[in-house]
Amino acid sequence: MTHGVGTSWLAGLESVARDVLPTSVFDYIRQGAGQSLSADEANAAWSRSRFIPRVLRDVSDIELATTVLGAPLASPVAVAPTTLQRLVHPEGELAMARACASAGSLMVVSSNAGTPFREIGATGVQWWLQAYLTRDRSLSEPVVDAAVDAGARAIVLTLDTPTVGTKNGIGPDFWEAVPPGTLRVNFADQRPGITGAEKATDLGPDDIARLGERTGLPIVVKGVLHPADAVRCVEAGAAAVWVSNHGGRQLDRVVSTADAVSGVVEAVGETAEVYVDGGIRSGLDVFAALATGVRCVFVGRLGLWALVAGESSVARMHEELRTELGESMRLAGARTPTEAVSMLVRNGEKGL
Amino acid sequence: MTHGVGTSWLAGLESVARDVLPTSVFDYIRQGAGQSLSADEANAAWSRSRFIPRVLRDVSDIELATTVLGAPLASPVAVAPTTLQRLVHPEGELAMARACASAGSLMVVSSNAGTPFREIGATGVQWWLQAYLTRDRSLSEPVVDAAVDAGARAIVLTLDTPTVGTKNGIGPDFWEAVPPGTLRVNFADQRPGITGAEKATDLGPDDIARLGERTGLPIVVKGVLHPADAVRCVEAGAAAVWVSNHGGRQLDRVVSTADAVSGVVEAVGETAEVYVDGGIRSGLDVFAALATGVRCVFVGRLGLWALVAGESSVARMHEELRTELGESMRLAGARTPTEAVSMLVRNGEKGL
Amino acid sequence: MTHGVGTSWLAGLESVARDVLPTSVFDYIRQGAGQSLSADEANAAWSRSRFIPRVLRDVSDIELATTVLGAPLASPVAVAPTTLQRLVHPEGELAMARACASAGSLMVVSSNAGTPFREIGATGVQWWLQAYLTRDRSLSEPVVDAAVDAGARAIVLTLDTPTVGTKNGIGPDFWEAVPPGTLRVNFADQRPGITGAEKATDLGPDDIARLGERTGLPIVVKGVLHPADAVRCVEAGAAAVWVSNHGGRQLDRVVSTADAVSGVVEAVGETAEVYVDGGIRSGLDVFAALATGVRCVFVGRLGLWALVAGESSVARMHEELRTELGESMRLAGARTPTEAVSMLVRNGEKGL
Amino acid sequence: MTHGVGTSWLAGLESVARDVLPTSVFDYIRQGAGQSLSADEANAAWSRSRFIPRVLRDVSDIELATTVLGAPLASPVAVAPTTLQRLVHPEGELAMARACASAGSLMVVSSNAGTPFREIGATGVQWWLQAYLTRDRSLSEPVVDAAVDAGARAIVLTLDTPTVGTKNGIGPDFWEAVPPGTLRVNFADQRPGITGAEKATDLGPDDIARLGERTGLPIVVKGVLHPADAVRCVEAGAAAVWVSNHGGRQLDRVVSTADAVSGVVEAVGETAEVYVDGGIRSGLDVFAALATGVRCVFVGRLGLWALVAGESSVARMHEELRTELGESMRLAGARTPTEAVSMLVRNGEKGL
Ligand SMILES: Cc1cc2nc3c(=O)[nH]c(=O)nc-3n(C[C@H](O)[C@H](O)[C@H](O)COP(=O)(O)O)c2cc1C
Ligand SMILES: Cc1cc2nc3c(=O)[nH]c(=O)nc-3n(C[C@H](O)[C@H](O)[C@H](O)COP(=O)(O)O)c2cc1C
Ligand SMILES: Cc1cc2nc3c(=O)[nH]c(=O)nc-3n(C[C@H](O)[C@H](O)[C@H](O)COP(=O)(O)O)c2cc1C
Ligand SMILES: Cc1cc2nc3c(=O)[nH]c(=O)nc-3n(C[C@H](O)[C@H](O)[C@H](O)COP(=O)(O)O)c2cc1C
Repeated sequence: MTHGVGTSWLAGLESVARDVLPTSVFDYIRQGAGQSLSADEANAAWSRSRFIPRVLRDVSDIELATTVLGAPLASPVAVAPTTLQRLVHPEGELAMARACASAGSLMVVSSNAGTPFREIGATGVQWWLQAYLTRDRSLSEPVVDAAVDAGARAIVLTLDTPTVGTKNGIGPDFWEAVPPGTLRVNFADQRPGITGAEKATDLGPDDIARLGERTGLPIVVKGVLHPADAVRCVEAGAAAVWVSNHGGRQLDRVVSTADAVSGVVEAVGETAEVYVDGGIRSGLDVFAALATGVRCVFVGRLGLWALVAGESSVARMHEELRTELGESMRLAGARTPTEAVSMLVRNGEKGL
Repeated sequence: MTHGVGTSWLAGLESVARDVLPTSVFDYIRQGAGQSLSADEANAAWSRSRFIPRVLRDVSDIELATTVLGAPLASPVAVAPTTLQRLVHPEGELAMARACASAGSLMVVSSNAGTPFREIGATGVQWWLQAYLTRDRSLSEPVVDAAVDAGARAIVLTLDTPTVGTKNGIGPDFWEAVPPGTLRVNFADQRPGITGAEKATDLGPDDIARLGERTGLPIVVKGVLHPADAVRCVEAGAAAVWVSNHGGRQLDRVVSTADAVSGVVEAVGETAEVYVDGGIRSGLDVFAALATGVRCVFVGRLGLWALVAGESSVARMHEELRTELGESMRLAGARTPTEAVSMLVRNGEKGL
Repeated sequence: MTHGVGTSWLAGLESVARDVLPTSVFDYIRQGAGQSLSADEANAAWSRSRFIPRVLRDVSDIELATTVLGAPLASPVAVAPTTLQRLVHPEGELAMARACASAGSLMVVSSNAGTPFREIGATGVQWWLQAYLTRDRSLSEPVVDAAVDAGARAIVLTLDTPTVGTKNGIGPDFWEAVPPGTLRVNFADQRPGITGAEKATDLGPDDIARLGERTGLPIVVKGVLHPADAVRCVEAGAAAVWVSNHGGRQLDRVVSTADAVSGVVEAVGETAEVYVDGGIRSGLDVFAALATGVRCVFVGRLGLWALVAGESSVARMHEELRTELGESMRLAGARTPTEAVSMLVRNGEKGL
Repeated sequence: MTHGVGTSWLAGLESVARDVLPTSVFDYIRQGAGQSLSADEANAAWSRSRFIPRVLRDVSDIELATTVLGAPLASPVAVAPTTLQRLVHPEGELAMARACASAGSLMVVSSNAGTPFREIGATGVQWWLQAYLTRDRSLSEPVVDAAVDAGARAIVLTLDTPTVGTKNGIGPDFWEAVPPGTLRVNFADQRPGITGAEKATDLGPDDIARLGERTGLPIVVKGVLHPADAVRCVEAGAAAVWVSNHGGRQLDRVVSTADAVSGVVEAVGETAEVYVDGGIRSGLDVFAALATGVRCVFVGRLGLWALVAGESSVARMHEELRTELGESMRLAGARTPTEAVSMLVRNGEKGL
């Protein structure tokens, strides 16, 4: 807002985090790859959308609850996988998990998480494992197996990371300052430089099928932007496609997810669930995303900014998103997320 | 203007209001819902339009007078319903009404007004009642009946408010500081929390018909943006459709009325009167709005900024708008508002 | 330029004028009507254009000379009618005329000029009279007749001024401070308020024919933006159509001439000469204008900024424009203005 | 990046140069012709592009090596011709040449270079001569012949310079301050003002053929933007077309090469090699350029900024560009530059 009136609680979270977190940690989370062009425009891409609300519709009872791969969600918002949660708050993944559990949400746990899967599972949260496969596939299997044992209900295979995108200012110094025991604690062998433990550069459709067979769980592919790739993934057995550009942290100048998501929904929306993340900071952003036809929206950084003040703050984040989403739906005349589809006008398009 | 020369009297009103009004009152009026994106772009959306004037047309006698639902207007500009007028100026709605009467304009009175309808009617102004229906419809009937008794000539049913949009920084504190007797004085029962007195979330086409039958007055629907809704309203008996996004105070990121209005004119312009409001701050804005084919343009905040200095200032607002509109029409070669249609180019469109 | 290197002499003229002229005079010249939106974007509209130069063309001899209504011009740039030249420099129109004469250019003299036509004609300059017609047509005839006597070779009838556009901050005070004898000196009767001496609000096609018959001179219509109006004017006998929005000084938010000119060229370019003015500040602007297909380009304010330093400065303006235009043509591969047509890409259009 | 985190080494080079070089030299290199509009938007035009990466592609082995006119390049990046290299660093062209040689790149040497061709050739670098032809063609022949003798493997004929574009602030003073022996040392006769030694203004298709016959080398035409000109050049015998606007140093407001290149690739991409330069500052820019279908990308100013710190710095420039390009390709799923084609979305275009 341009005239000094208050901001919403959610909109204020990032600046609280900036004040509280060590600069290097804040910067690492905040920034994107390269010049951060894509990271910086992710949210703007959602707020370029304009809505054309409908009136004379009974919005007395609106429905926020949904399911993802059969798991019930109180509202179509869940938490994306992120690392370093224990640097953000001492209780790290556990605080995140408890807050998600109490909110009836879902948490996706990074394979590089700083908390043992078993402890996360013990909070009772519904959770999925996010997995990176290694060049020598057998080296990533134990982590996946451990997650299955600890109750993960789906595997999210990240496809956009054959190599880690360069983030300016983040070098060995940064990683050496990360306290031991806060990263990759679910790997049996923590030694660096094991041959074959680098991220796989040759992921193929087969990996999707194999991972499904090994785990007996549905496979979600994360990091898909091109419709043709979405089709390939679904044909290879993926149960869901997660449109993501990794928060702008991999290839800079990558298309924003707000611009890419409709193409994917169109290509595979009938045969698979479609999710999206990137730049979601408010309930109105969630609404804009749902209006493209996705089933669920994930938050990355927003969850981390909330986590700065611990479990209750993450719980409040869920609450506020839910409230804002509900209000947006009522005001737009949408009783369900599905009814939001087609209420969206991209700026510059002839609206009506 | 970028080079320090004077601004028009109308353009200066807001900053006078900012200086004179208590900050919280100014902010409450000025701001929109959420991040105020839609509130902030409403005026810009009009000034993006460019005109292609016509020459060699006799503009010696131009015609500003028109009618709305049969009521004669000296010019196609009237005053939208707003609350808190008595916080803006002690004489509140009465000053507004007298100025509108003397200008040959029309005033729409909010059902939450701070002045008894009878007193407003006694000024001799042509006025319409703006109504919100309550969940228990019978609870909103007395206010409507009172307005009819006091001479309201039409009922404007606001459709865009199944719930009140969240305005950051406006909470219970703000409302508690509003002096008693300046809000909702036309409600018999002022006690908060009466069951069924919440805003209706289930308005339907039937409400339009019922309200028409009860009052015997034409019904104007306010807050319509989608052409299909305009059609539904007219089919349900609405005599006029008022394109509005409630000044950006309900759903943020709602389409600007400047962008939405043409679709509605196209859909129902032949069978009903169409009005528009939102971001109108000058006679040139009025001209841009008329060029979309609407019959009348309403001002919300501009009337409040003028009201800060009382009746004479509102009268001058009408005068200036009229003068600017007349000059714009002459310079554009439009003898009537109708002739302005098709002189408008939206920025970016191929003009000619 | 964004990095502190020099600007061209032409680009620096306005800021010299700002330093030298009384503020009120500078402001009066610089500003446009209303919020000056159109005045401010006039130049930007030209510089949005991008060129696609051609190579392997012999540009050893390029041709800048042209004719307008048969009058030879050393280059396709001439001076638009403006008033108050004697407030800009004591020698006023005479300095302007001498510089135009020596540059082989053409000067259009305002009917409100501050110098007797006879003196202007005596400089030997090729000149045209710009005329406003009055409500009582007979009252504008003496001025026109005097101009014909003094050697005007065409009459430029300004069509865009049925009333003078409001310029904020310019009121009676400004006009009272204008020294007597510097404005409207070619009117026999200088008394204000003569009945019928107001600007005509009922100009029609007939006025074009009548003016042609009375003067025996070709008639140029100035202030045309709509192609249909251009056609009407040519059918009524106009020899040339001058696309102008009066420097943004009449209707604010009027389309920029850079956006409007092509439509007019397309409509009447085969049967009449087409000129354009508005926002021309450099030889590259002239080139962009020529690339739309017009025969000649007129400068208003640029000539006044140059006039601040007298005749030699106006002469240098012509020289610099000519040099820049010549260089632009060579670099673009255009041997004649005509060859520039089709080298222009409006920003945002698919270029090739 | 907007939040104070580090920039890449490449992105920091210009500001190092600004600190180290004499202001006039820095400005001369940095600026463009006229208002520098085209110079300033060259890089922005590349970074407006957005990528739609592909996943599930084996990017274990990506291929950066290519050939230009048969010459092997370690990566598709080479150095454009620029003058004044010895003002940028005492070792000038020799440092540039050695660094290009060690990087497996190619250097194009300006005919106005400050180092004898023989010395450049002696470094072992693969190099081409950039030639300007003079009005009297015979006067430019000795320089061309000397280059052939010294091992130049192709001739780059610059077509966009029938006259040198005016750069504000660069006048005789600047050129007089250039130390003797740092410019045009490959001309036998250094005296200014020899008749016929001006740049040719009448280049034609024949010049291409003649130059090919005289030198027995392939001819590259540099400075082509229009597809029709590209066709003419190829028909006249050019082996390659280099899309360039001379770094915005000739015609200002010229189309950006990022906008023009696709048209040329489409027109002659099957029959000739196509290169591009202008505004390339990072590996991601190189990737964006390759995605348009060109075979090689040239850097002008970036090489000069690197040269400020000598040979090792130019070597590092090659290294960083190579690394960034490789990372970009892996992240985009492109194993070869060719696979990058079609991954590009211009901003504003419907992506998918
Ligand atoms: C600090 C941080 C760490 C992340 N770690 C992972 C990860 O381990 N695995 C993964 O697939 N994505 C990871 N992501 C990407 C997120 O899952 C998500 O795609 C992205 O943050 C969404 O954008 P947003 O932050 O704007 O909501 C990480 C993101 C951040 C900010
Ligand atoms: C302070 C304020 C109070 C308002 N109260 C009402 C109201 O009671 N009923 C209603 O239908 N609209 C209400 N509105 C909306 C106006 O009728 C109108 O739609 C809006 O102000 C138009 O935009 P503008 O302010 O930019 O002219 C209110 C607007 C403001 C600014
Ligand atoms: C101070 C001033 C006085 C003007 N007076 C006249 C006039 O008397 N008659 C007329 O037809 N146009 C008049 N014009 C408009 C010019 O002829 C011309 O259309 C306009 O200035 C072109 O825009 P530019 O100033 O950006 O070049 C005047 C313009 C200015 C700035
Ligand atoms: C200082 C300088 C000198 C140049 N000299 C020449 C030259 O002698 N011949 C030539 O064909 N191009 C010359 N160019 C243009 C470059 O070859 C190239 O087209 C341009 O610099 C590419 O844009 P960039 O600098 O943004 O990479 C020069 C450019 C600069 C900056």
